[in-house]
Amino acid sequence: MPTIKDVAREAGLAVGTVSRVLNNRGYISDSARKKVKEAMERLDYQPNEMARSLQKKTTSTIGVIVPHIEHPYFSTLISFLEKESHKHGQKIYLLNSMGITDKESEFLELCRRNQVSGIILCNGNIDFSETALGEIPIINIERKKEGGHACISCDNEMGGRLAAEHLIEQGCRNLLHINGITENEIPAIDREKGFVCACESAGISYRVIKKQLYGYQLKNADDFMISLLEKYPETDGIFTSDDILAAKLIQACYRKNIRIPDQLKIIGFDDTPFAMWTTPPLTTIHQPIQKIAEQALQMLADYHNNRQIPANVVLPVSLTVRETT
Amino acid sequence: MPTIKDVAREAGLAVGTVSRVLNNRGYISDSARKKVKEAMERLDYQPNEMARSLQKKTTSTIGVIVPHIEHPYFSTLISFLEKESHKHGQKIYLLNSMGITDKESEFLELCRRNQVSGIILCNGNIDFSETALGEIPIINIERKKEGGHACISCDNEMGGRLAAEHLIEQGCRNLLHINGITENEIPAIDREKGFVCACESAGISYRVIKKQLYGYQLKNADDFMISLLEKYPETDGIFTSDDILAAKLIQACYRKNIRIPDQLKIIGFDDTPFAMWTTPPLTTIHQPIQKIAEQALQMLADYHNNRQIPANVVLPVSLTVRETT
Repeated sequence: MPTIKDVAREAGLAVGTVSRVLNNRGYISDSARKKVKEAMERLDYQPNEMARSLQKKTTSTIGVIVPHIEHPYFSTLISFLEKESHKHGQKIYLLNSMGITDKESEFLELCRRNQVSGIILCNGNIDFSETALGEIPIINIERKKEGGHACISCDNEMGGRLAAEHLIEQGCRNLLHINGITENEIPAIDREKGFVCACESAGISYRVIKKQLYGYQLKNADDFMISLLEKYPETDGIFTSDDILAAKLIQACYRKNIRIPDQLKIIGFDDTPFAMWTTPPLTTIHQPIQKIAEQALQMLADYHNNRQIPANVVLPVSLTVRETT
Repeated sequence: MPTIKDVAREAGLAVGTVSRVLNNRGYISDSARKKVKEAMERLDYQPNEMARSLQKKTTSTIGVIVPHIEHPYFSTLISFLEKESHKHGQKIYLLNSMGITDKESEFLELCRRNQVSGIILCNGNIDFSETALGEIPIINIERKKEGGHACISCDNEMGGRLAAEHLIEQGCRNLLHINGITENEIPAIDREKGFVCACESAGISYRVIKKQLYGYQLKNADDFMISLLEKYPETDGIFTSDDILAAKLIQACYRKNIRIPDQLKIIGFDDTPFAMWTTPPLTTIHQPIQKIAEQALQMLADYHNNRQIPANVVLPVSLTVRETT
């Protein structure tokens, strides 16, 4: 395989000049650029990305650490992150921490050793003060971190408020919020806060049920959902903290012969394509997942261009009405 | 940051010996191994993966090229591939070709430039004869390729047969197969073949509807599904070529007030977690997605250990009965 030296010889130029052309750095005359390009074509020279990365001390790779891959929210987010990364000349390492802090720590170290150009950490639990990442920027998604680490989240409180207001507008008077999020320190907890605020402002009776349902497949959510429907038969509107919980609730209504939306109205949270596949199709709070991905990649690019990046970005959500309300 | 030379000096050994320890190559005495380990700890030396990769001429990274990320089949497959890759000391680049041949070609080239240790190409359309990948092994998933390129698929024909046999056993006498796969050269087409064989063996009336539904979100599948139900009212059992098509069919039945499974039985194909979230929960053909991922990573490891790898692996499927039959 031809090397950069062969290209330099073929082009009749110094190796340093060829290197400047390849890295698009410093002054290069148009004629030198043309000579290098022609020499590369004649020799079928293709630069070795690894050798170039070693020289640049960074790769064109971003580490994306997620707690799940199959959950529709994360597969949608990963899909947009992958797409956006190419627009910025980057590719992604996909790393699944399964929400385990030790795994997050292991993957941050893996990213450091492989000199990624940035890290996007989704729903991370790790305490950064104990990690030494040097100059590698980290963008947190849906986790606020101390010490000025950048964070992007959706407006969770607004989402909870929109959900409650929509149910009230549709005539519901006994609301329930099923909250699968039981950690207190994360932005998603504000979904409950927004819901409660809206109910109290309107003077509507409400209840909040917190329940850690282990494993997002929610295999054991069936009995729990049925017991809720039995315990609170007066309920006429339910807001769940994500779309999969809503899907499990729809199944429970089917088993109890409760008609949706006539007898009970349901609204979820996320609005991935999944919400279009339930029966009936799900009314839900739309998260701007594409915008979150765009913002994350833009912030990493800005960091490398020495532009200031905001410590905290909160993106607005909206209501998508389908057939469960 | 300390370098390998510092470690050698600290350990009182030659750089070559330290390198042999780091790469676990050639003869190394226990005492030398111990000295290197201690010196590394004292200096807090962490090897630079990129420099090591450059020397080894390959990375510990596998390129995973998929046509979708959000489709439940692919997100499940990606999740298992990511998990299995770590067991083999590998990590993955995730690349979404969107099923576009030019993108596959671009990503194969990206993998080559970055000297991946292997490529897993899912549902690839590209003709390999025009790509120069050198020594990089490719494992194809659900695409048989000429020229001895390794392929893993599930037993699609068996799946189609199991689906038809189950519907017949449940008393269905007018079967329909909705086939969203319209390319002829791919293994999944055998789902139809198995279905047709089983119907003909049993002497049962059947119909096959081929329909390319663009975009897996199937936004415009609604009218199509309703028109099918209206056109063939005698139908009492339907097999769809994937679970999302089945979910859209369930929605159409809901709109037409057709009771599942009393009036119509439905069976899908894939059995990702998604099949547990429809209402009613979906009977489907289970693809061994975890086994496909394990097999792919094992084949890449075998290739690098100079073991022979099979050109074609077909893994058995099974029937998962839920509530649509």
